[in-house]
Amino acid sequence: MTKVHNYSAGPCILPQEVFEKASQAVLNFNDLNLSILEISHRSKDFVEVMEKARALVKELLNVPEGYQVLFLQGGASLGFLKAAYNFLPPREKAAYINTGSWSTKAIKEANRIGEVIEVASSEDKNFNYIPKGYGIPSEAKYLHLTSNNTIFGTQFKQFPISRVPILCDMSSDIFSQEIDVSKFDLIYAGAQKNMGPAGTTLYIVKESALGKAGDNIPTMLDLRTHIKKDSMFNTPPVYPIYVSMLTLEWLKKNGGVPAIAKQNQAKADLLYAEIDRNPLFEGVTAKEDRSNMNATFVLTNESLKEDFDAMWKEANINGLNGHRSVGGYRASMYNALPLESVQVLVDVMKELENKKG
Amino acid sequence: MTKVHNYSAGPCILPQEVFEKASQAVLNFNDLNLSILEISHRSKDFVEVMEKARALVKELLNVPEGYQVLFLQGGASLGFLKAAYNFLPPREKAAYINTGSWSTKAIKEANRIGEVIEVASSEDKNFNYIPKGYGIPSEAKYLHLTSNNTIFGTQFKQFPISRVPILCDMSSDIFSQEIDVSKFDLIYAGAQKNMGPAGTTLYIVKESALGKAGDNIPTMLDLRTHIKKDSMFNTPPVYPIYVSMLTLEWLKKNGGVPAIAKQNQAKADLLYAEIDRNPLFEGVTAKEDRSNMNATFVLTNESLKEDFDAMWKEANINGLNGHRSVGGYRASMYNALPLESVQVLVDVMKELENKKG
Repeated sequence: MTKVHNYSAGPCILPQEVFEKASQAVLNFNDLNLSILEISHRSKDFVEVMEKARALVKELLNVPEGYQVLFLQGGASLGFLKAAYNFLPPREKAAYINTGSWSTKAIKEANRIGEVIEVASSEDKNFNYIPKGYGIPSEAKYLHLTSNNTIFGTQFKQFPISRVPILCDMSSDIFSQEIDVSKFDLIYAGAQKNMGPAGTTLYIVKESALGKAGDNIPTMLDLRTHIKKDSMFNTPPVYPIYVSMLTLEWLKKNGGVPAIAKQNQAKADLLYAEIDRNPLFEGVTAKEDRSNMNATFVLTNESLKEDFDAMWKEANINGLNGHRSVGGYRASMYNALPLESVQVLVDVMKELENKKG
Repeated sequence: MTKVHNYSAGPCILPQEVFEKASQAVLNFNDLNLSILEISHRSKDFVEVMEKARALVKELLNVPEGYQVLFLQGGASLGFLKAAYNFLPPREKAAYINTGSWSTKAIKEANRIGEVIEVASSEDKNFNYIPKGYGIPSEAKYLHLTSNNTIFGTQFKQFPISRVPILCDMSSDIFSQEIDVSKFDLIYAGAQKNMGPAGTTLYIVKESALGKAGDNIPTMLDLRTHIKKDSMFNTPPVYPIYVSMLTLEWLKKNGGVPAIAKQNQAKADLLYAEIDRNPLFEGVTAKEDRSNMNATFVLTNESLKEDFDAMWKEANINGLNGHRSVGGYRASMYNALPLESVQVLVDVMKELENKKG
């Protein structure tokens, strides 16, 4: 097959060996002569998948004792609501940092349950930076962050120091860099970036922090429901969890989070260096807040768009168009994207300069 | 591969040709040289899958004008909550028929929003029948049913005549028989029986019936959110929807719902006839309410359990153990289970009689 350099923002590239195993399991899983799509989620074989996936999350992120790992459904979009339901008692206050569309949606859901204090926002500059230098009110029950903004291409390079618990939507950078899980009461993340395909959502929750937010939480939105049943309260999304497990196995085999973090840094350095060097391009976001996952950039001369678009498509690059709310280009460089794919893009950028610069 | 006769209650058997196409798409989807797991849900190729899946539902069930078809997440368990949020104004009343675990859970969620009137229940006999002869209070905003009870093996053979709108959880018998969609304001169903693998949930909703249940519905639970965005408000479960589309294509190619309904009746007739004929077995449920999807039965002499279990396993039958709350056996005969597999089970039952009867 022709190699496609897949820069999709999510769902996104996963390792080729994961696709091969995942394809095989659809025909015959674990030599059962059954497809993974037709087995019971309560079968020994699938329970092992679920347990392995949860154990790999714990191992790869050094999840401390006292935390529970869950594989649920609904994406971060349902996570916004679950975060508020589980941590915000009715009519109490919560602090949110607004770094873009996802934070804005999280704020909307929390405002149904209690009162949101928006402690900082980068909306004044179309979310092209991460706010700094704000206070966190002590009456807030928690501080909510979006660690990486996929759309605008910004990323928290360090997390705020907070006396109130931190809840974080890490959908687009989890497993890309080392994190100290003990600094968070809740981490949640849609799978479809570094962890697996679309269709499951990871929750890492400090168990002792639950149970303080009132007791009229709908059953499916109450994280305690799923803790009690080991993520099997109802039928889980079997295949997305299986492919996530395969992806986490691949990550472990390849040196885990520290090794992939180095690679991710190398990929980001290579691309941002070219964006800064090449007079035909410029970055969209504040340099110190640039995401290692999603690099956003524009042409300095919009009339070159047709040429550039033709050239990267010719080079078998896929998924480079920017989000409609930012425009320009977005290169999503998730864990499974090889450095070689970034080099291909950089070469195309140089070639454009040589031809048209 | 050795043929396995897969009687799993869900996730369950799907057609072999679906597994083959689904396996191939994980390696190379639509000749894009990309896996279906790594493409954007907003790509032309996936948008076509979503549209085709929705169109097939409309065609196969003769969905009338004015209804919307959605592919969402969360299973029927989240559907219980969505049904109540979208149709029950706070503090108003809704009527529920309690035919088992799933209805009981649906009642629990609706009671958070308004007041449930349990108009009938078969709990007095461990849900082994479908209640009849009840009134439906006119002040109820709707009547809620579970069309087929997977666990106990009962099924509504005709739906009640109701002056209030009917909402129905059809998770375990949708696409197994013809239905008149116009009789329902909402039908919802987890995919993992007749429609596809675990991980997506179908909603068929009468659009004009929405918008009457208050306006503080959380975004992800509000069906209007998903209607506005053609089931793409957030990243959908790409692969479960794709495999559902393949399964619906298979159903259409094989004569659609009328043809499969005949086959399902033939399979059920074959098995229930043997249960009734063979002195070593008896059915669990009231005869007139027997489910064509899930046949529940027990041995009349429990001491034959070891023999019978060894025999059906030897015959490559899988997934025949009854649910823990009923015991005995449960033969789930979803659309993709061939008549030949039912014959294999019937033969084993006869063989047990010949040996031990």
